[in-house]
Amino acid sequence: MEKIKETILKIRPLDKEAMKKVRERLDNLTKPLGSLGRLEEIAERISGIRGQLTPVIKQKVIFTLAGDHGVVAEKVSAYPAEVTPQMVYNFVRGGAGINVLARHVGARVIVVDMGVATDLEPNPAIVNKKIAHGTQNIAKGPAMTYGQAIQSIKVGIELVENELSKGVDIIGGGDMGIGNTTSSSAITAAITGMAVEEVTGRGTGINDAMLKHKIKVIRQALKINQPNPKEPFDVLAKVGGFEIGGLVGIILAGAALRLPVVLDGFIVGAAGLIACTLAPQVKDYLFAAHCSVESGHKIILEKMGLKPLFDLGLRLGEGTGAALGISIIEAATKILNEMATFEEASVSKKL
Amino acid sequence: MEKIKETILKIRPLDKEAMKKVRERLDNLTKPLGSLGRLEEIAERISGIRGQLTPVIKQKVIFTLAGDHGVVAEKVSAYPAEVTPQMVYNFVRGGAGINVLARHVGARVIVVDMGVATDLEPNPAIVNKKIAHGTQNIAKGPAMTYGQAIQSIKVGIELVENELSKGVDIIGGGDMGIGNTTSSSAITAAITGMAVEEVTGRGTGINDAMLKHKIKVIRQALKINQPNPKEPFDVLAKVGGFEIGGLVGIILAGAALRLPVVLDGFIVGAAGLIACTLAPQVKDYLFAAHCSVESGHKIILEKMGLKPLFDLGLRLGEGTGAALGISIIEAATKILNEMATFEEASVSKKL
Repeated sequence: MEKIKETILKIRPLDKEAMKKVRERLDNLTKPLGSLGRLEEIAERISGIRGQLTPVIKQKVIFTLAGDHGVVAEKVSAYPAEVTPQMVYNFVRGGAGINVLARHVGARVIVVDMGVATDLEPNPAIVNKKIAHGTQNIAKGPAMTYGQAIQSIKVGIELVENELSKGVDIIGGGDMGIGNTTSSSAITAAITGMAVEEVTGRGTGINDAMLKHKIKVIRQALKINQPNPKEPFDVLAKVGGFEIGGLVGIILAGAALRLPVVLDGFIVGAAGLIACTLAPQVKDYLFAAHCSVESGHKIILEKMGLKPLFDLGLRLGEGTGAALGISIIEAATKILNEMATFEEASVSKKL
Repeated sequence: MEKIKETILKIRPLDKEAMKKVRERLDNLTKPLGSLGRLEEIAERISGIRGQLTPVIKQKVIFTLAGDHGVVAEKVSAYPAEVTPQMVYNFVRGGAGINVLARHVGARVIVVDMGVATDLEPNPAIVNKKIAHGTQNIAKGPAMTYGQAIQSIKVGIELVENELSKGVDIIGGGDMGIGNTTSSSAITAAITGMAVEEVTGRGTGINDAMLKHKIKVIRQALKINQPNPKEPFDVLAKVGGFEIGGLVGIILAGAALRLPVVLDGFIVGAAGLIACTLAPQVKDYLFAAHCSVESGHKIILEKMGLKPLFDLGLRLGEGTGAALGISIIEAATKILNEMATFEEASVSKKL
């Protein structure tokens, strides 16, 4: 708990002085004032986050955290739980969506076993931080103990800290875990107070009957567990997941270390919601890459006041949306650093 | 005129057989069915465009065409006309927004003088295709002769053809020309029949009074010139621009050569509107990168039935939005080519 408290205490406001100077430079670049829209806002905020006038996004890291969910026993997913470890192996072999998109944007992917239900074959490319063999079934009781919830966040913080020596300019979060949209919907309903049916979607692609059933299961989970919306650790412990807890830690650590944190879709969004409930000042460090097809994600983004960078109808998770978002953010910083000013290029200014 | 006719006749429907096979592969990749949303649709369409099962987007070319507009005499722009040649020099020195974003996505930029009002210093990096020293003032008469309109399109076609030997997998269009949102609004109003005030925006950033004046100037241009909405060459000649004509040619040539064509913002959109009026089958080859802040752009996209890939509030032109769009399209093809199938990765399929 000390570690989490310390991390939260380290989170500082953005560097307004750097942002002001960067805005001046942006306004002097050879383009009509404000004509690069959100790219300019991004560049400005990155400078505030990094406390730098020419922030460079070069070392990009996506943390893809895997965990299983006991609630799959209630048949809430279109895929069997064995897909979680199978996909972890796919990640380390480089064949998954996140591998392709991370390569495309030049990011490295850190694959972490936060709580896969089976024991994975030891592999140097899998960071073993297994807290338990999957969570308990939230339809019957809490997902995990309070101690495990704290531990999962602590692990997330350490994952970022351990990566620093290799160089980190930006981090993205990603998830893998059959059943984790169920958990994320429960977290979203618990914290925002929205009705379960408003924050529950089809996950990996369930039909109408299964969606109806999934909503019922989540309602039951909330009824049995009674998570306290003002106690984020309680929400995480009662209806969360180990990968979600890890992502909360990653988000907190990113903000504490003055790193921009790019959120992926619904599951990482749910982690962001927990992180912002713990420490509202985290928000300034977050970028929402995209708007997921999962209905609860939109509600999370509204609650956090984050406007996604794009909407391409993604709902894969793994960090895929975050990867594309990182590339846009990198582009924004290059605009700031590489474009000529009116003076440098001898271009006339506005009449 | 023969050249344009020949080019249009070469435009074929998409390769449905390739698209069907690609859809099968996409459905077998290790992800929930359809979970990469529009990235999957893009990959499918690119395969139909290229007629290939594993289309690779490697050689990316952005054509940034510059031209001046006589209508600037009516004081419709926030910047003086001298900015057009100044920005051309900025392009060849690599200091403009398009240079930065093209480098970011690994695209080369072809800078073309289609009709800058001044004589540019000879430079191997500027393709000199000057048709005239700027268009005539459309508030007083036609922008150019019918022959110049045809010539500008022909030049655009040749620009793409001349690039083929260096390798081209995808092309993007971009523009530079003080006054060219005025021309693009006139084109949009003429072809779509929308009211001038609905399709006219602030361009480089004019105030309310200037916007009102700009709308008046465009109304006058349409009244004096009476462009025939069913005759795209007539519209181009009467209220168009040399860079817009060149972009029409680039779009037609891209479609004829089975290359995906990525549209930038409002000006390239106006060229797309002319191209689609000339040859509706062009549409299948087009991708709208983004939705510009210019109100007319949304109307163009609706008319063409194109859904932009993102909306970042851009309104710079030059091909900047196209550059970012190209990167998303490249990512989509990598998904198709590099992701493992369920079988390859030994991942269980849907229950």
